[in-house]
Amino acid sequence: MGLVPTMGALHDGHFGLVEEAKRLCDRVCVSIFVNPLQFNNAADFDRYPRDIDADAAALEAMGVAAVFVPGVEDIHPAPIYMHIATSGIVDRQEGAYRPGHFDGVATVVSKLFIAAGRSKVFFGEKDYQQTRVIADLIREFHFPVEMVVVPTVREEDGLAMSSRNRLLTAAARSAAPALYAAFQAGRSRAVQGSATAPVLASMREVIEGRAAEAGAAVTIDYLEAASGEDLRPSDRFEADTRFFVAASYDGVRLIDNVAVFEK
Amino acid sequence: MGLVPTMGALHDGHFGLVEEAKRLCDRVCVSIFVNPLQFNNAADFDRYPRDIDADAAALEAMGVAAVFVPGVEDIHPAPIYMHIATSGIVDRQEGAYRPGHFDGVATVVSKLFIAAGRSKVFFGEKDYQQTRVIADLIREFHFPVEMVVVPTVREEDGLAMSSRNRLLTAAARSAAPALYAAFQAGRSRAVQGSATAPVLASMREVIEGRAAEAGAAVTIDYLEAASGEDLRPSDRFEADTRFFVAASYDGVRLIDNVAVFEK
Repeated sequence: MGLVPTMGALHDGHFGLVEEAKRLCDRVCVSIFVNPLQFNNAADFDRYPRDIDADAAALEAMGVAAVFVPGVEDIHPAPIYMHIATSGIVDRQEGAYRPGHFDGVATVVSKLFIAAGRSKVFFGEKDYQQTRVIADLIREFHFPVEMVVVPTVREEDGLAMSSRNRLLTAAARSAAPALYAAFQAGRSRAVQGSATAPVLASMREVIEGRAAEAGAAVTIDYLEAASGEDLRPSDRFEADTRFFVAASYDGVRLIDNVAVFEK
Repeated sequence: MGLVPTMGALHDGHFGLVEEAKRLCDRVCVSIFVNPLQFNNAADFDRYPRDIDADAAALEAMGVAAVFVPGVEDIHPAPIYMHIATSGIVDRQEGAYRPGHFDGVATVVSKLFIAAGRSKVFFGEKDYQQTRVIADLIREFHFPVEMVVVPTVREEDGLAMSSRNRLLTAAARSAAPALYAAFQAGRSRAVQGSATAPVLASMREVIEGRAAEAGAAVTIDYLEAASGEDLRPSDRFEADTRFFVAASYDGVRLIDNVAVFEK
């Protein structure tokens, strides 16, 4: 079985996961569950996009075997006394800005893995840190699942597909492709062994300049060149260095990442 | 499949679990793993009894399908970034005296449940609080396992079977049956609706008196009348009240519990 865990409001990034699952598995199950445990901010949870009718119709058209749409009590029955506590790379990037986020992710993903049993599970590379945390979860708890990480799907202008994109204002939507444009500019300047700081500084200018032009307010939580292995920031470009960014546009927070050097 | 998780140094309490598992299941697997995560005290872990050759011979004679004896790295492969964090009743009794104990129990038991898959799992009532924590673990994470709790097996003098009994000095071995004698004395004085405090005080005298006679040093961590449901201490005897005790005899810590009223 192939399991594609999602939070719904499906887009071509999700459909790419489903296509890959269909290619590799006999039967595909897509779960749709907006997991309250992984939101550190209640307002963010409340306004997270939901569109279950459109999601179900699209998945039916794709021929998936099952769509699993549990309620909160089905997954987290009260009273709640237990969760998976995480450490290590969860202190960086998303974990640093969203306290408890990865505990919530690891907990819900464990429950889905337990329900799924032996299976292949599909996650998108856009949530790169999440894929690293889940790799540890599978390794440490010996889940009988094999994780397949599927490359990020982008809009034509380079913006990474995300359910949150539908929350963007027009100005923000026009400015946000600068995240990927900055990655491309950084890639073109990066040389293995050279310093990352000046490259990151120019990338920041790309992001902030485009936002100013578009009239969107941008706040960059982090813009890093870091190891794809342990997510430690790198002073110099190495073979496994990736760019990572998290930025809010008019209050809508987006993340993205790429490998600096093509494999 | 029936899974009997143990820490080895098997005694008739364990063999009772195995017999019950054989009665209810087609095949029985016994795991033997002294789990370092559930010991808050390194010396206690080091001196915990181990006798793998005798254990394996006894289990083979009983006709179990498999004995699973993993190494620490097999269960907890380094680096360790994740564990199950517990709350609620883990603040009481054993959890209060052994910080982190139930996090370690929940974590190792989860890993065994994930390895076992759909199964019945067998635990002894002597570790009553543990059975309550594991019931929550199964409920919250939706493990496809059914827990069977097997009554405590006792020596002829009433001492609950425990691997730690083999660590007792002669004086301590002679004094320790007072734990059960105190339970019996308490049961004979308990009346539903009456106050627990005077009964507990007389039970304490039984335990301390016998230790003094035998020349063993006893330290009582807790001696409680508490709800069998949520382990809250009860001022008055209720239908579900149980006696719980934890006491160290010459430095060897024993626990025991009984229902006050027969069902």
